[in-house]
Amino acid sequence: MGEGTFTVGLLGHGTVGGAFAELLAERADEIERFNGQRPVLGGVLTRSQGDFEEILASSDLIVELMGGIDPARGYLMRAMEAGKHVVTANKQLLSQHGEELFETARARDVRLRFEAAVGGAVPVVRVLEESLSATPIERIHGIVNGTTNFILTEMSKGSSYAEALAEAQSSGYAEADPSDDVSGRDAAAKMAILARLAFGSPVHLDEVRYEGIEHLKVEDLQYASELDLGLKLVGTAERRQGGLSVCVFPTFLHSGHPLAAISGSFNAVTVESEIITEITLSGPGAGGRQTASAVLGDVVSVMTGGARPPAPPLPLRMIEDVESAFYLHLDVEDRPGVLATVTRVLGEQEVSIKSVVQRGLDERARLVMVTHPVLESRLRAAVEALVEFDFLRSAPRTIRVIEEEFL
Amino acid sequence: MGEGTFTVGLLGHGTVGGAFAELLAERADEIERFNGQRPVLGGVLTRSQGDFEEILASSDLIVELMGGIDPARGYLMRAMEAGKHVVTANKQLLSQHGEELFETARARDVRLRFEAAVGGAVPVVRVLEESLSATPIERIHGIVNGTTNFILTEMSKGSSYAEALAEAQSSGYAEADPSDDVSGRDAAAKMAILARLAFGSPVHLDEVRYEGIEHLKVEDLQYASELDLGLKLVGTAERRQGGLSVCVFPTFLHSGHPLAAISGSFNAVTVESEIITEITLSGPGAGGRQTASAVLGDVVSVMTGGARPPAPPLPLRMIEDVESAFYLHLDVEDRPGVLATVTRVLGEQEVSIKSVVQRGLDERARLVMVTHPVLESRLRAAVEALVEFDFLRSAPRTIRVIEEEFL
Repeated sequence: MGEGTFTVGLLGHGTVGGAFAELLAERADEIERFNGQRPVLGGVLTRSQGDFEEILASSDLIVELMGGIDPARGYLMRAMEAGKHVVTANKQLLSQHGEELFETARARDVRLRFEAAVGGAVPVVRVLEESLSATPIERIHGIVNGTTNFILTEMSKGSSYAEALAEAQSSGYAEADPSDDVSGRDAAAKMAILARLAFGSPVHLDEVRYEGIEHLKVEDLQYASELDLGLKLVGTAERRQGGLSVCVFPTFLHSGHPLAAISGSFNAVTVESEIITEITLSGPGAGGRQTASAVLGDVVSVMTGGARPPAPPLPLRMIEDVESAFYLHLDVEDRPGVLATVTRVLGEQEVSIKSVVQRGLDERARLVMVTHPVLESRLRAAVEALVEFDFLRSAPRTIRVIEEEFL
Repeated sequence: MGEGTFTVGLLGHGTVGGAFAELLAERADEIERFNGQRPVLGGVLTRSQGDFEEILASSDLIVELMGGIDPARGYLMRAMEAGKHVVTANKQLLSQHGEELFETARARDVRLRFEAAVGGAVPVVRVLEESLSATPIERIHGIVNGTTNFILTEMSKGSSYAEALAEAQSSGYAEADPSDDVSGRDAAAKMAILARLAFGSPVHLDEVRYEGIEHLKVEDLQYASELDLGLKLVGTAERRQGGLSVCVFPTFLHSGHPLAAISGSFNAVTVESEIITEITLSGPGAGGRQTASAVLGDVVSVMTGGARPPAPPLPLRMIEDVESAFYLHLDVEDRPGVLATVTRVLGEQEVSIKSVVQRGLDERARLVMVTHPVLESRLRAAVEALVEFDFLRSAPRTIRVIEEEFL
């Protein structure tokens, strides 16, 4: 905290914390040249060493890279109450206690930055924060989990889910316990944060509907490829019916969609608005040094007096039942009248078919349909009605489809 | 300049200026809610009305949307010397007098923002400014001119250059006099600005080597498509041989390259660095409201105390002769020994062939080759040697190829 230096206290010294400490040292000269102040690492708090209050007292800014809710939450609150700026990559904390943190930052007039909490090295938080006032955003689509995108990319080359997960684990793209990633919960937390930034409405992780990729089959990806579709785990936050819908689902994308080409562990976010039509940001979604680079970008941003915390919330009603096109896959007995019955049952629920492919397989047939946009509740009702019929040979599979191109 | 208001003086009221005035009025409530201060339009200077000094005196910030060097340059300098913040979309001015403007902004401690000067609605300036200190950038590739990308997209569907240009003009994507766009000069100005931001070295428009799209033929795009390549007008700024190379050329891209899929009037920029690997930003490159939205984003950024002007320059030597892979297209007489002669001549200049396709056409043959990376001077020397031979039926065509994928 001396003249000409800017002292950073670091909480957590795992993969990202270690990479951050390294990068800070590497880049200190350049940052000093650019900003006139030199960033230096003050104390480091790990599980086994360091004293939080001592680190706090000697720091201008606290970087929190411990993860988890406690004690990270208490440390960040305490730091801001002591008038210190904070930078965090903690998506779980922000998606569950974001408003409390934002309110404290506003009340204490300190900076609270969290670029690394959402898109790895992709600067989506910064872009949303700064364009928010200028552009009313209509919709965000995001591939915001690198682990699942890596697994789906491997599956699209023919690997089974289990093989692809093992490959992700051995390449360092998935943790030993991958459940937060593959369940969609990690992506849901990130979409909650993006929705808050884009729409000004507080969204708690518990309000985000999500589904993971554990139940996807290689066949789903093969059909996708036959239909010139990509299968991705897509988060969506959008204005609907005067409210806000936020969800994460495996989704088929047409090959022309900007997210369809995002492969491996990359992340990408598409922001749509009437004024700007569509902006896409993409880049590496994971990796210690990439994330550390985003954290250091936040530190520099605080040093240069960058963006304020989000404005007080303007809550929107959460909408659960939204329209979407669906891919519907039925394994049926190959006998006369089955297609007629299926289309009648769908029609009763106002599910309208856009395209259908029927293929015979011995005495069975496979019906693959893409619907026009329909309320999810109606599709579910139609599927429930279909399972009553004895011509079904296995449970119907439904997957969302993003059909329209915005432009 | 009253309590709670932030007065914006506007110079220029053409397409973008008019859209900006409109957007400012539309978004004032939301910006006030977010920032506590309300932006209001003060005076407007047009060719026929308004007094610059009066507008200046009553404004907190001056937005310059007149374009051209004079009188825009004098107005911006005068505004900063009077302690006012400035926002401009003037790429010609920044690429020719940027250092003078940056230095004045630093000396007077005012903000100088220019997001709209480069990528339309794509926030590439902001991202480069803020990540600069955290990440040493190796290379930038950009499609930074929407007019030429629109024309090339039309040509890839079979239109001639003249037809595609006429279509661009009637759709509002090209001006009556398109020479700044189609010559590559507009893209060169933008690359000069991006290079300054990414590498800290001042680059004058005159130092950027550029070539336009006027001489491209439909056949070039057809061959591109056969080779699974896209043809784009690509700007490149990169560290090379301890110096800096900045250029704009028609370039073949492999279909997996992030820029290959950018179509119509969209812009995109790919930033490569060892730490972040590769980030891509894309979005609409032109249009009054899109550009106005970027300008308003800059105004909001100033209101929230955002980024400082670029640091004092660290000049790098400009490198002109750089290595690149090339596509080489020769129309030759179909007689024995021609291919052997061609490969010998290329070999003498150390031009090594990666792939070659020969096709017979009556008594002529077409040789299409892609070289391994080679110094441009060597390729030029080889081509000069080839034109001495009488088996050539038309002038050789050479086009750069971006082969490698960074990842």
